Amino acid sequence: MSRLRVEPDDPFGLHNLPYGVYRAAGAEPRVGVRFGDRVVDLALLLDDEVFATGSLNPFLAQGPARWGSVRSQITEALQGEVDAAAVHYLADVALELPFEVADYVDFYASEHHASNLGRLFRPDAPDPLTPNWKHLPIGYHGRSSSIVVSGTDVVRPCGQRLPPGESAPVFGPSTRLDLEAELGFVVGVGSALGTPVRADEVEQHLFGVVLFNDWSARDIQAWEYVPLGPFLGKSFASTVSPWVVPLTALAGARVPVPQQVPEPLPYLTMEQPWGLDIELAVAINGEVISRPPYAATYWSPAQMLAHLTVNGAPTRTGDLFASGTVSGPDAGQQGSLIELTRGGAEPIAVGGEKRGFLEDGDEVVIGGFARLADGRRVGFGEARGRILPARGED
Amino acid sequence: MSRLRVEPDDPFGLHNLPYGVYRAAGAEPRVGVRFGDRVVDLALLLDDEVFATGSLNPFLAQGPARWGSVRSQITEALQGEVDAAAVHYLADVALELPFEVADYVDFYASEHHASNLGRLFRPDAPDPLTPNWKHLPIGYHGRSSSIVVSGTDVVRPCGQRLPPGESAPVFGPSTRLDLEAELGFVVGVGSALGTPVRADEVEQHLFGVVLFNDWSARDIQAWEYVPLGPFLGKSFASTVSPWVVPLTALAGARVPVPQQVPEPLPYLTMEQPWGLDIELAVAINGEVISRPPYAATYWSPAQMLAHLTVNGAPTRTGDLFASGTVSGPDAGQQGSLIELTRGGAEPIAVGGEKRGFLEDGDEVVIGGFARLADGRRVGFGEARGRILPARGED
Repeated sequence: MSRLRVEPDDPFGLHNLPYGVYRAAGAEPRVGVRFGDRVVDLALLLDDEVFATGSLNPFLAQGPARWGSVRSQITEALQGEVDAAAVHYLADVALELPFEVADYVDFYASEHHASNLGRLFRPDAPDPLTPNWKHLPIGYHGRSSSIVVSGTDVVRPCGQRLPPGESAPVFGPSTRLDLEAELGFVVGVGSALGTPVRADEVEQHLFGVVLFNDWSARDIQAWEYVPLGPFLGKSFASTVSPWVVPLTALAGARVPVPQQVPEPLPYLTMEQPWGLDIELAVAINGEVISRPPYAATYWSPAQMLAHLTVNGAPTRTGDLFASGTVSGPDAGQQGSLIELTRGGAEPIAVGGEKRGFLEDGDEVVIGGFARLADGRRVGFGEARGRILPARGED
Repeated sequence: MSRLRVEPDDPFGLHNLPYGVYRAAGAEPRVGVRFGDRVVDLALLLDDEVFATGSLNPFLAQGPARWGSVRSQITEALQGEVDAAAVHYLADVALELPFEVADYVDFYASEHHASNLGRLFRPDAPDPLTPNWKHLPIGYHGRSSSIVVSGTDVVRPCGQRLPPGESAPVFGPSTRLDLEAELGFVVGVGSALGTPVRADEVEQHLFGVVLFNDWSARDIQAWEYVPLGPFLGKSFASTVSPWVVPLTALAGARVPVPQQVPEPLPYLTMEQPWGLDIELAVAINGEVISRPPYAATYWSPAQMLAHLTVNGAPTRTGDLFASGTVSGPDAGQQGSLIELTRGGAEPIAVGGEKRGFLEDGDEVVIGGFARLADGRRVGFGEARGRILPARGED
């Protein structure tokens, strides 16, 4: 038995306590909580069978009352003597996907991002936003099976693209491979078919937040996406950070969303501030190229979940919905290379080299911290991935 | 023990043997095979533990060799004496969703359907098809959690729509609720991240076929779908038939797909005929309004699966991909009301009434049969659903 200590300013102190799934060498997956630079086995720490399956999903399904009481128990237990058998340094374990993903939806909630893309793709349009953009959080379903945990390599996808000036596509490795820095929101308690989740009920369903990289092959996407939306340009991989930060830990980071004009329809009205003061950091090969401020995002997660279910669509434990690329209003705040390089036309400097889009061997790390009103930071860890050459090309 | 008999021309004879999940009154779900107007419990019939969980998915995951040997065992067992405890009349059981759906993708594979919609939505365009249409099977991900089994009522969805001539949307029940008659293809054996399924390997992965109704709220869809595709206009419900017809049972219904010009890229090339001679029948309130011929569909299921995975996206047991609306070239062969009524402008007669789109209380049944080269028919059962008034409106 020993007492675990973390520094007072550690972003993974008792004010955070994010959940994940880890695997020690040769062992089965276990559910753990991160505390400083360690992970603590929750089945052992709390002697609670909900954590015994090695999956976080059964706990996610239990709902806010249990989420709160377990958080209190963890807080108390970590301040006492802890069985050494329950404790591992992060360096000694492998981190797994922190939950089993049910349905996955990606939104398009940043006005700055949507405007930047609108200007690139429709330079002559009077308004860079489509007419629906300020009336609803635009979203689409993505592929759950290709969601991978941080650290998983990403093989450059092959697909069809239309070379400039041509009328027939060619097939081959994507030449415009991009990242998208996002937040992901994890549903704990699902909702039944036919029963919309009202915006003021979202905290009964939403468990926590992860970092998310929605890797995008811009050339494949551009050729395929009219009229039914992105498909193979996105479905080859999406990376999540290994720690689900509970919404409770972010209560001190809640801020109002940017002013919404015109006023949204009643089902999208919020009583609470649902913005989050979270700064993301995007690094390529160790060099930070952008710091997207999530607080600048127009549509909130409460509005996303209310919209997603207003037609009666059910949700399930493990549903993941992501914000879409987070971009701020200023230079150096864009969450994708297509924005930072203006469609590749103005490459940026990365470690003494130029980058329009990602090259084989590049490693992308999306990090992030929430800033609490009391000055403390809540850590998210990172969503990391390295680009491997296309299959058959290495 | 007794011997089960079906008529020689029964579409659910020994040549079919589709799989499903049923529930007798007060009992747990069981996996069964349909034989005539009965369902036979497979865990009892074969004494095989793969069927003992009440889910078809473990069997789907076992692959073609097991699919073949189990089919042989069923064929032999049904020709002998069968334990009466294993046999139920269909009228005595409830049919459940026949498999747990992993990822769901909807394609847009019928040239006639895509052309009909192009003419409606883009009347001034020189070509009703988008430039990519003949180069790749266009598809998009849909919501798995709202896929329901035949017989499940469908509540009219609410959502945003833009009234004609207005610039701001209104919220309320969809006024343009439609059906889409499709086939669904069920993946048995998944494929790993980074490993495309070649067109000539599809039979190692694809288990069987269901009927599918991709209910569509055209007004919600029209307002939301630019630029990221259909979302709430589709995600409120999709109906599958309760029997998965094995691909093996359809071997005698394989026909060439329509000629594909221009020739598809090599990864979409097929060695085998991958069309299927299946005629669908769409009925509203008991009256058949359309008979869409699946054989007229341009892109084949082998091409859909090869395309879906060519970027390295993984597949899983229970993945479902649907054809998109099946429409033929002739009058009375369109698989949706928006086509049959030209966007609602030319309502059709149904039971002495007029229908532009679906009204509350309407019951839609999609049925279908494959025609084997030897003249026998393979039955699919039906995908049935009744429209209930919007929530709060009844």
